[in-house]
Amino acid sequence: MDIGRLVELNAVYARVIDTEQFEQWPELFHDPCLYKVTTADNVANGLEAGIIYASSRGMLQDRIASLRKVNIYERQRYRHIVGLPVVLGQANGAADVETPFLIVRIMRDGAMDVFATGCYRDKVKPDTSGALRFAERIVVCDGRRFDTLVAIPF
Amino acid sequence: MDIGRLVELNAVYARVIDTEQFEQWPELFHDPCLYKVTTADNVANGLEAGIIYASSRGMLQDRIASLRKVNIYERQRYRHIVGLPVVLGQANGAADVETPFLIVRIMRDGAMDVFATGCYRDKVKPDTSGALRFAERIVVCDGRRFDTLVAIPF
Amino acid sequence: MDIGRLVELNAVYARVIDTEQFEQWPELFHDPCLYKVTTADNVANGLEAGIIYASSRGMLQDRIASLRKVNIYERQRYRHIVGLPVVLGQANGAADVETPFLIVRIMRDGAMDVFATGCYRDKVKPDTSGALRFAERIVVCDGRRFDTLVAIPF
Repeated sequence: MDIGRLVELNAVYARVIDTEQFEQWPELFHDPCLYKVTTADNVANGLEAGIIYASSRGMLQDRIASLRKVNIYERQRYRHIVGLPVVLGQANGAADVETPFLIVRIMRDGAMDVFATGCYRDKVKPDTSGALRFAERIVVCDGRRFDTLVAIPF
Repeated sequence: MDIGRLVELNAVYARVIDTEQFEQWPELFHDPCLYKVTTADNVANGLEAGIIYASSRGMLQDRIASLRKVNIYERQRYRHIVGLPVVLGQANGAADVETPFLIVRIMRDGAMDVFATGCYRDKVKPDTSGALRFAERIVVCDGRRFDTLVAIPF
Repeated sequence: MDIGRLVELNAVYARVIDTEQFEQWPELFHDPCLYKVTTADNVANGLEAGIIYASSRGMLQDRIASLRKVNIYERQRYRHIVGLPVVLGQANGAADVETPFLIVRIMRDGAMDVFATGCYRDKVKPDTSGALRFAERIVVCDGRRFDTLVAIPF
């Protein structure tokens, strides 16, 4: 799989979230799919359950719908810096890819902090039109604790 | 437009600033050009005026000249981490591109903080020699507040 | 030298460290090699000596062995975000490359901070199998001070 196209998919993913075009986010996944947010500690301890879990575009869309309701009064902003992807293996047109990320949170008053870092563990394959989409995106956060109420996509 | 060449242009841009070879910075723009630093809030509110504005290489060079005078006693350092570019459209050999960035500031005593995050909104096209240059670079900072005295290029 | 392959080498380098597969880290270097960690101030002042220095895979392996002993009780985690490489020159199949980096440290309690930023100054060339490896990697940290006891590879 061409690394340029993986870079492009990851760039679009980050842009959709950071520009708050959340409704386009589920479109970057296959249907059904696997989307899970978990922590490195959970993975190391063999805990399969994620903090956030979805197995279809419909579930992803539900998250966005609730995010739109909840966050009317919240005005923090997020900025994803996505690192360089490593292709771990390929078979049948699908690729296993790991890509590090860093998310900065910008508060209403301008204060900025490192909100999360971690690694995307993905299965990527083309859809019927040839566009690359996520069959799986497991978001493994480095930190042990984070606000489980936060609803933006990672 | 080849994404590898866009990556290269952005990498050189960041390096010129972080190695303090500021005099080479205007060379990365067309002449005339548009260089503007603004905030996401200003953009959302339809405010056109930027915090920093230049429309020619000469104006960019003036900024650098004043930076060289002002900052003799300042010793902070900056580090740009530029993310993955998204090509939004292309026409007549020019491309509309958005690229996220993160700037870390390193103080004289070694303290580091996230200085700025945001998105470059660019129009990129080749000059007569074929080298890619910025016809426009609009720097949209995520934070609402920043030190307007700061003179380094974003 | 293809920029895609440089991106790949840097991505693998970061992944080996952040997944704590430290024993694979020396494999990314030629033997003999030059690995040095220093600061931008030292470089600016013409100080050649680095804070960390190795000239062979054996010395790199020794660092890892001591790291494995020392760090049994330490549980911080690191996340490298590697920026875009700039190829400064090429000759005889080797390339001079500079690549910015940002390292976030994640403490046991989940607190995160910017641990280091800087620039990798590399000489990269293929080994006999054609795989790109570092003949030199000089890690120039932006900050003046850092914990010299820290043993993870930068």
